Amino acid sequence: MNRQELFGQILKKKSFLCVGLDTDPGKIPSHLLKGKDPIFEFNRQIIEATAEFAVAYKPNIAFYEALGPKGWESLQKTLDYIPKDIFSIADAKRGDIGNTSSLYAKAFFETMDFDSITVAPYMGVDSVKPFLEFEGKWVILLALTSNEGSMDFQMELSKEGKPLFQEVLEKSSKWGSPENLMYVVGATRGEKIAEVRRIVPDHFFLVPGVGAQGGSLEDVAKYGMNAQCGLLVNSSRGIIYAGGGINFADSAKQEASKIQLEMEVLLEKYLHK
Amino acid sequence: MNRQELFGQILKKKSFLCVGLDTDPGKIPSHLLKGKDPIFEFNRQIIEATAEFAVAYKPNIAFYEALGPKGWESLQKTLDYIPKDIFSIADAKRGDIGNTSSLYAKAFFETMDFDSITVAPYMGVDSVKPFLEFEGKWVILLALTSNEGSMDFQMELSKEGKPLFQEVLEKSSKWGSPENLMYVVGATRGEKIAEVRRIVPDHFFLVPGVGAQGGSLEDVAKYGMNAQCGLLVNSSRGIIYAGGGINFADSAKQEASKIQLEMEVLLEKYLHK
Repeated sequence: MNRQELFGQILKKKSFLCVGLDTDPGKIPSHLLKGKDPIFEFNRQIIEATAEFAVAYKPNIAFYEALGPKGWESLQKTLDYIPKDIFSIADAKRGDIGNTSSLYAKAFFETMDFDSITVAPYMGVDSVKPFLEFEGKWVILLALTSNEGSMDFQMELSKEGKPLFQEVLEKSSKWGSPENLMYVVGATRGEKIAEVRRIVPDHFFLVPGVGAQGGSLEDVAKYGMNAQCGLLVNSSRGIIYAGGGINFADSAKQEASKIQLEMEVLLEKYLHK
Repeated sequence: MNRQELFGQILKKKSFLCVGLDTDPGKIPSHLLKGKDPIFEFNRQIIEATAEFAVAYKPNIAFYEALGPKGWESLQKTLDYIPKDIFSIADAKRGDIGNTSSLYAKAFFETMDFDSITVAPYMGVDSVKPFLEFEGKWVILLALTSNEGSMDFQMELSKEGKPLFQEVLEKSSKWGSPENLMYVVGATRGEKIAEVRRIVPDHFFLVPGVGAQGGSLEDVAKYGMNAQCGLLVNSSRGIIYAGGGINFADSAKQEASKIQLEMEVLLEKYLHK
């Protein structure tokens, strides 16, 4: 999916919601556990219930990997079930030397057919570029995350007084373009989103941390939105575990619908025209 | 496996060789491709042939992940085949926010039973600590890698004039101890190994980049060895693809034996007594 198509979906659905599929066998309703593939069945119902409100789905790969080979089968079936006009994100935080990154890219772009993958920048240019070589696919590079540990290195100031995340943005934005490179930008600090937006005005941001991690959706839109929206805001637990029991998918639908309505207002208010 | 046991293996085998299992269906001898699980069969024969010379095996997870669920099955069988007195490394470069890192740790330490995993530091303390909470398991944290892109961020100087890799070493060495934390230290620059050794005198280093990537084994030993050896030097392609055809395992054995002999001399010369 290209940037124009993604923006088209955002306009059509009046939403920039990404639903995170952090599907945990310990948290899904117990009636599903009797089935053959509870993880996929949970995801299937979640996707069914939320597809009209979501422009992206983001399986968190660790949740599937922890289940061994059958977890990867559930992941593949989930990916196959995501409608083709909805952007798919493998939240995998991969990255290694060139030939190894090429194989990670192959795993997520060929063996599976994700639109995008999250990548960690520590190993530099040749760990990121192999992912960018896949036509029509996207890298979503870690820039500024929303967790406690983001203070350890990402905020470290360089000799020139620039935090590391700024170096990552400035260098990496030359490796790709806004057509194949997005950034993970943590939502817990509105002023930080504004700072990142000034450095990379045109790129899409994947914003975790709204909801469970405490960020404000209004701040994200106010400081992060650009002329093509430029935002995918993720909610995982807040949606998929909105309710338990037999009606879990209805609860997820209500929650996704509520967020979509907020997003509609924010698009009206902040989309640069 | 604890540090004392690992050191015991090093003394017993007079070797600090790690064999990298970067097993590629496009590179293994064609006679294996007819079998049910060529990847495992290749690894089985390589392990059989090299176990007397190696103190560690390091499957590069990307190679297995690229093959989908059956790749994970080959990986599991390979891990099961590695003798219990040989240290196993999941070269996976994982790392994410806390609850997600816990699941990656579960994937490699419980679902599978690796002794250790390589982890990327960009997301900081709460992305690394979950791995350190597993009793008897090890984190091998990326510090200074040997690829071109290591110049992009790892060598970036901070306000205090410290390169990022030094910040990573100094901070992270407080999160764990030499009993559960090692570092990836690229072998292509001898003086850099000496610099890292000064910062973390007691930790083990996993050193890639000897052989195919051009580092000198003598320099690594001279500048990196400590009183418990403190080194695992990896060779992947140089050993496992030393020869093709029906006798590939013999070629691997000869190559591993040759490196072990060099290591025996270097242990005699540089092990601090």
